[in-house]
Amino acid sequence: MAAVGRFPAHARSVRETEAIPLTDPAYQQCISPACGAKYGIDEVRVACSRCGDLLDVAYDWNRLSVPSALSELQQAWARRDDPHCFSGVWRFHRLLPFVPLEQCVTVGEGQTLLLPSEGVARYVGSKPGRFYLQYEGMNPSGSFKDNGMSAAFSHARFVGASRAACASTGNTSASLALYCSVTKLMRAVIFVGSGKIAYGKLSQALDYGALTVQIAGDFDDAMARVKEVSQQLGIYLVNSVNPFRLEGQKTIMYRVLEALRWEVPDWIVVPGGNLGNSSAFGKAFDELLRLGLIDRMPRLAIINAAGANTLSELVQRRKLCWNRGKPPLEIACRYYDEMDAEGRRASTIASAIEINRPVNLNKCIRALEICSGVVREVSDQEILDAKAQVGAGGLGCEPASAASVAGARKLVAEGVIGRDDRVVCILTGHQLKDPNATVAYHTTDQKLFNDVLGSRGVSRASFANRAVSVGNRYDEIAQAIELYG
Amino acid sequence: MAAVGRFPAHARSVRETEAIPLTDPAYQQCISPACGAKYGIDEVRVACSRCGDLLDVAYDWNRLSVPSALSELQQAWARRDDPHCFSGVWRFHRLLPFVPLEQCVTVGEGQTLLLPSEGVARYVGSKPGRFYLQYEGMNPSGSFKDNGMSAAFSHARFVGASRAACASTGNTSASLALYCSVTKLMRAVIFVGSGKIAYGKLSQALDYGALTVQIAGDFDDAMARVKEVSQQLGIYLVNSVNPFRLEGQKTIMYRVLEALRWEVPDWIVVPGGNLGNSSAFGKAFDELLRLGLIDRMPRLAIINAAGANTLSELVQRRKLCWNRGKPPLEIACRYYDEMDAEGRRASTIASAIEINRPVNLNKCIRALEICSGVVREVSDQEILDAKAQVGAGGLGCEPASAASVAGARKLVAEGVIGRDDRVVCILTGHQLKDPNATVAYHTTDQKLFNDVLGSRGVSRASFANRAVSVGNRYDEIAQAIELYG
Repeated sequence: MAAVGRFPAHARSVRETEAIPLTDPAYQQCISPACGAKYGIDEVRVACSRCGDLLDVAYDWNRLSVPSALSELQQAWARRDDPHCFSGVWRFHRLLPFVPLEQCVTVGEGQTLLLPSEGVARYVGSKPGRFYLQYEGMNPSGSFKDNGMSAAFSHARFVGASRAACASTGNTSASLALYCSVTKLMRAVIFVGSGKIAYGKLSQALDYGALTVQIAGDFDDAMARVKEVSQQLGIYLVNSVNPFRLEGQKTIMYRVLEALRWEVPDWIVVPGGNLGNSSAFGKAFDELLRLGLIDRMPRLAIINAAGANTLSELVQRRKLCWNRGKPPLEIACRYYDEMDAEGRRASTIASAIEINRPVNLNKCIRALEICSGVVREVSDQEILDAKAQVGAGGLGCEPASAASVAGARKLVAEGVIGRDDRVVCILTGHQLKDPNATVAYHTTDQKLFNDVLGSRGVSRASFANRAVSVGNRYDEIAQAIELYG
Repeated sequence: MAAVGRFPAHARSVRETEAIPLTDPAYQQCISPACGAKYGIDEVRVACSRCGDLLDVAYDWNRLSVPSALSELQQAWARRDDPHCFSGVWRFHRLLPFVPLEQCVTVGEGQTLLLPSEGVARYVGSKPGRFYLQYEGMNPSGSFKDNGMSAAFSHARFVGASRAACASTGNTSASLALYCSVTKLMRAVIFVGSGKIAYGKLSQALDYGALTVQIAGDFDDAMARVKEVSQQLGIYLVNSVNPFRLEGQKTIMYRVLEALRWEVPDWIVVPGGNLGNSSAFGKAFDELLRLGLIDRMPRLAIINAAGANTLSELVQRRKLCWNRGKPPLEIACRYYDEMDAEGRRASTIASAIEINRPVNLNKCIRALEICSGVVREVSDQEILDAKAQVGAGGLGCEPASAASVAGARKLVAEGVIGRDDRVVCILTGHQLKDPNATVAYHTTDQKLFNDVLGSRGVSRASFANRAVSVGNRYDEIAQAIELYG
């Protein structure tokens, strides 16, 4: 296919698949050959919904200016007053050059931290100095989504979109709305289902001025409609299947390496929902190894919530694997059919990973192969206990994030992760994203605990930190402090 | 007084006053001569509670290594992998050298942003390109408090404290608790009043594992007890009167200058509560001018909420002013007596500035003198409308933060701030700190609106962004998008 539109010559190939029935023609308008000219895509391959091909942004590295060593990228540090050097995404532009740098959009994303935590290390079972938390909650919208959104948003701008849409009530909608409000380059359209709207979850999207369309239907209806409407009206779709978001999410790993002075850790542990992070991490390390920028692979551990354990079920019990690029995806199709027949739906306190059919399943299977990965699942009880440990020993996080820590603990106990291994757990979202779970865990109000947590099978708050009530008298207070403090 | 303890020789003088009755011997234990040896303070002057002297960290700049130009400080940028260079507070250590750098504690604070916003500029009345938002909500605990806490905490560590305390249900307790949880250098003790605890507000302190002592009494009781208990038990007190916190807060201005390539803006606009920020900003600019590092002063605008308007009342109506270092503070004392006699208490939706007696009043009066400052007050209605504009045109904020934008708008309308002036509004806290106010403003639920906002005299939500309800059909959705999007 000849080059069309304004897609840069060096970003040679964008290939697509939908391995799992989630594929939908509506989405493909963004990247299908029919719209190639309009959207400036150079080369696109659209695969059938059940084949094993992958929608990827593929680079012809031979035609690109690749750094000779990762440490070369540090040159950006000294140019902090250049927004693209300041950005935690775009200072790595040479490793995701799908849009010319001058067109890349930044709102200051990626000022995140890699923090060692002795307290959480002890809980996990790691030796001191071997355990780190990568804190993505410090992004502008409060979650890791800003990494991918800065990339997708840059692509949307590059191809001339004036509106961008997603179906989401959570972190994705907050991130899209934020990029629109700060840059004014596009109008955000958020699709949500109806019934009682959880306005709390939507508070960021509303605050950032996104047009919020409430469909008379459930989330699946909202998802179906956003694809249809985006295709018809030429609105750029940023839902998880968008491959440019994954390009941005690669930079989480670049920042981990940067903070470790370009040493590869032994393990990356990440919560698994739609599997965009794990897919992006696998692609990032695969590229770095091929480019000779790292000399070994870290291992990847993907942690499902037990109440949303599609990946764990497929990989651990049903033996779905990469199979040299021909994963037996009929295993997944069969499983989804079963879920539908039984009316089973994901349910976990970790709402950010409460996913039935992970959009990026196929790429994630590839990442597991690339990084000799493992999958585990953890209960809501384990998630909340781990979350309390992250709070007490770090910067706090939302429930889904803590799945990584709970999973690391399980893998250390199993001996899969060694106590000496250098481990990085990804904390995907800010503690303030879900104060309800925090309050319910630490409360002395049994009814509140039962309503929020007991109903999910959480029976204890082993690490609850409860306020100590004392009289308004010095000696009583002093006694309490000496006792507990 | 001879040098004692480990206080560095170059940080020559720490002087104290409590100009306003809020002073309390309990606090002074941290820095009084009696404890000088224990706390390593070289020189201390304790003033009576009604005199005009100031508790300041004063430096003998002649004995210090002062940069010859602010741009020299950029050298830290290239050394991002050194935590002290990465810190948005400690990369300016040469301008707040009260503790040796190697003893300074950082959790990665101060990765904040100065963002231009055309949308908010239009609302305020500023010309395009002349208006900026300094977004302090991106600090680890979600508010500007981390700036001051990193400084006070470093001092606490330096003097050997093993416990640190404050009375707070909000941002201060969150910040203190976070420094304790991340560093494990100290145990945090948070004093709160009783009655029904707003656990939501306390969720961060509880999550970060702080010992939370609930006193049978109100907030004033908690404040009185924390001072008493701190003195008796040798616990380091970090409430607002702590002068080292203000040293950390100076760095907010250094980062503004840094982002403006070391050019001084025309106006700094800041919400006024306990007046720590405005006091710190005045001190920062005063020092920079004396050191020849800037050549002119910005002007300072301090914005009270109308429901917590002590500063505005004292300065605008009762003519309290610096008076060459002898401010007629009896004006303030008289006003407080009146408030007490009438049983008047501060009340505003902007809870972070809902303060009756600002601890830093005296220093703030000095800052107003130094920076040719002005004071205004804005209603809760104006605050919430401004907050909606900040959300729609920027990164969002908590209600108190938006007072700065509402105040800037008022001052532009009055002609005090010129439309051409370069204006920086400080946004002190993250949008996620108070989702309730956001939800109530944008809701279609009249009862919720009335309960949360109507009760505070807010009658309209002029900039509300409400979800649009449509059927589950393409044409209806498309119509809605074309209409609103």
